[in-house]
Amino acid sequence: MKITVVKIGGNVIDDATALRGFLRSFAALPHHKILVHGGGKIATEIGYKLGIEPNYINGRRITDEATRDLVTMVYAGAINKNIVQLLQAAQCNAIGLTGADGGVIPAALRPVKEVDYGYVGDVVTDQINVALLRALLQLGLTPVFAPLTFNKESGILNTNADTIARELAIALSAVAETDLVYCFEKDGVLSDPSDAASVIPIVTAPIFDTLKKENIVGGGMIPKLENALSAVAAGVKKVTIGSSLHLQELIDGKKGTTIL
Amino acid sequence: MKITVVKIGGNVIDDATALRGFLRSFAALPHHKILVHGGGKIATEIGYKLGIEPNYINGRRITDEATRDLVTMVYAGAINKNIVQLLQAAQCNAIGLTGADGGVIPAALRPVKEVDYGYVGDVVTDQINVALLRALLQLGLTPVFAPLTFNKESGILNTNADTIARELAIALSAVAETDLVYCFEKDGVLSDPSDAASVIPIVTAPIFDTLKKENIVGGGMIPKLENALSAVAAGVKKVTIGSSLHLQELIDGKKGTTIL
Repeated sequence: MKITVVKIGGNVIDDATALRGFLRSFAALPHHKILVHGGGKIATEIGYKLGIEPNYINGRRITDEATRDLVTMVYAGAINKNIVQLLQAAQCNAIGLTGADGGVIPAALRPVKEVDYGYVGDVVTDQINVALLRALLQLGLTPVFAPLTFNKESGILNTNADTIARELAIALSAVAETDLVYCFEKDGVLSDPSDAASVIPIVTAPIFDTLKKENIVGGGMIPKLENALSAVAAGVKKVTIGSSLHLQELIDGKKGTTIL
Repeated sequence: MKITVVKIGGNVIDDATALRGFLRSFAALPHHKILVHGGGKIATEIGYKLGIEPNYINGRRITDEATRDLVTMVYAGAINKNIVQLLQAAQCNAIGLTGADGGVIPAALRPVKEVDYGYVGDVVTDQINVALLRALLQLGLTPVFAPLTFNKESGILNTNADTIARELAIALSAVAETDLVYCFEKDGVLSDPSDAASVIPIVTAPIFDTLKKENIVGGGMIPKLENALSAVAAGVKKVTIGSSLHLQELIDGKKGTTIL
């Protein structure tokens, strides 16, 4: 069995045309696949209308109870079911899930240190229900995950979609050859941020060290690459980062940055 | 295989204590089971806050596009995932679904006659994905359905939860002995509406004719009983109507009205 885990973020979700285009390419992928989606602006917009103001500490959103209810409704209801019905229309037998459904993604409530992030879950990777995911894939289904996890004491928990995608890919690597694809707004990791064509095609641990030392990559790309390298170290076959406009080419290694 | 399909309505969903109590009994049922839930007041309340006013024609709510988005968000997100996490906490491996997930419940957009009900779906019973439902049950999962169906042209459709429960039970009857339980706010069908203890224990087609002729049942109970009798005629083993407070007793035939 070969599995591809693909993550899309808010930039695709917030653009109906881009989303449809992306989902058509995703539906056409021939092998077993899992989609993990992020949140998008719609949660914040609906939150404002409902009087739920976003609350940030050090740039991280705090998930209080009202926010948890909001993101559960928006991520698992509005966004997830819209993606599921678009995939169904594109002949892909999608099944929308949160980490609570089938108990697939158990998480620990993030411990309170300097900051209490509220209802935020840290995935317990070795308790991911890999057997169930495998069974769903073998039934011909394509799981579509909202960025929500859970545990029996705390209920639904908010978890970063990049993290969910990574932990799913690591857990699935134990039973199948698993690739991970992160779609974002650029064509890959750029050696020159002002030049969209300067995609670095391959990154390995030694290459990453050089890129960091020579200040070729910086800012938001460092945690993305560290996250990808740690996934590869934990058993994921390869991680590709690139544009949602070129999903098939990312998977074929013709575009984007591949982390090995 | 023996399957019990249970439907709960808004009166239970809107009462957090009643819902927890009901879900504990539901989780404890030993055999294969499926839960179908209705909407509750929360959709209307959130709709008002978002500026989506309910629009009724002849007492039937019209599902325009804004209402469809609202009920998708509230039914499939807020209500469904709350039920799933409560069942998980009660040791029941629930998986929350709409009719779009896994393509389980295809529906036809209701034809426009005198009234255009909007995005309302009429279940196409012989296209229900019984094989998938059976596979999910065999994996030890308990499907929990929001009252939403779909088709590839129209997307997500609003469908009455009583109807979804009935059509699921009919479709499953082809592969397993299937019972259907409707939970509502009374103890069963009453022969005297002012006497909560006057539950009619058994209704068959001839008994129903007598009850109607003698005006013993009326109002809202006639369509409920017709609906139940048609399910039995279509292969469902038995239908029980009674209070969500006594689920196990309803299933054991010790309380409620059983339609045979």
